[in-house]
Amino acid sequence: MTSISIIGTGNMSKAIAAVAERGGNNVQTLGHSDSNVAVNGDIVVLAVPFSAVADIVDQRGDSLTGKVVVDITNPVNFETFDSLTVPAESSATAVIAGLLPNSHVLKAFNINFASTLTDGTLGSAPTTVLIAGDDNGAKTVLAEVVRSGGLTAVDAGSLSRARELESVGFLQMTLAASEKITWTGGFGLTA
Amino acid sequence: MTSISIIGTGNMSKAIAAVAERGGNNVQTLGHSDSNVAVNGDIVVLAVPFSAVADIVDQRGDSLTGKVVVDITNPVNFETFDSLTVPAESSATAVIAGLLPNSHVLKAFNINFASTLTDGTLGSAPTTVLIAGDDNGAKTVLAEVVRSGGLTAVDAGSLSRARELESVGFLQMTLAASEKITWTGGFGLTA
Repeated sequence: MTSISIIGTGNMSKAIAAVAERGGNNVQTLGHSDSNVAVNGDIVVLAVPFSAVADIVDQRGDSLTGKVVVDITNPVNFETFDSLTVPAESSATAVIAGLLPNSHVLKAFNINFASTLTDGTLGSAPTTVLIAGDDNGAKTVLAEVVRSGGLTAVDAGSLSRARELESVGFLQMTLAASEKITWTGGFGLTA
Repeated sequence: MTSISIIGTGNMSKAIAAVAERGGNNVQTLGHSDSNVAVNGDIVVLAVPFSAVADIVDQRGDSLTGKVVVDITNPVNFETFDSLTVPAESSATAVIAGLLPNSHVLKAFNINFASTLTDGTLGSAPTTVLIAGDDNGAKTVLAEVVRSGGLTAVDAGSLSRARELESVGFLQMTLAASEKITWTGGFGLTA
């Protein structure tokens, strides 16, 4: 059993909590404004928009030392819906890792629409969660939580692969927004 | 029925030819060195590595005027296997479109491993071909060929989405090269 703190209370927060609870893990959910409540998880999921992450880090930076911090964001420019707001050669995760040098920062869940986590399936297959990061131990801990909830976890490589994962997440959002797919569909991975 | 010329003779050339022929389309396959043989297709697929495209364009540029030109490349830096060789804010397709301003340049097939085109399936579902480009008529012509061969075609948006498709293709190649998936698997799209 792993303890997980999820900061944020939206659809993705609820969906990730559902996965973790299915696996018998201990889940703490905190609102962005609950900055006076300490995180008690070994894993801390930042389930807030990318634009809110810097504020969370300001509030909680020191208390995240040594923890596995999971970035789930797709830093889409919602004015143009034609690019991301991070530099093209970087990623939201790389930016967050720069803000939290003493945490083990991972990218995960950003290509999973919420319902595919809650339901555990995408189409007829178990939902796959891709995890990128530079700390193998941290990736293993998160992968165990994902698998305990009945999903498939795949190591997507180093932190630099977060850039490609954000491209997948962005493309998937444009496909759903233009009604080429539904918000219960998306990219799945066949082994 | 559509006429398709495929330049290149490797696995992807054969796989795309198989799709087109299944749909009853007319297929001409040309080697890189067959520069003295005119293309006769309305669609011209550049089934060569990105590094060979400039030479093909030098040879055939004028004869590609007005044609639908399909870029299938993933411009991976094979020395580092950690990035693409095109600028981060650009794409191979954007570069090729710049070289061929009088053609209708599309991105397609770059996230489809060859066997998933030949077999027509990825896992238990029909293989999906994502098509990006700025010319809707060109996308429709190519989508009809894809569907005639039993595959699913999805409009992935404007030419600028080629960048995200190349990120998907690159990520998929790293997953196969690191044996997280096989070369018969990959990303599929659930509607």
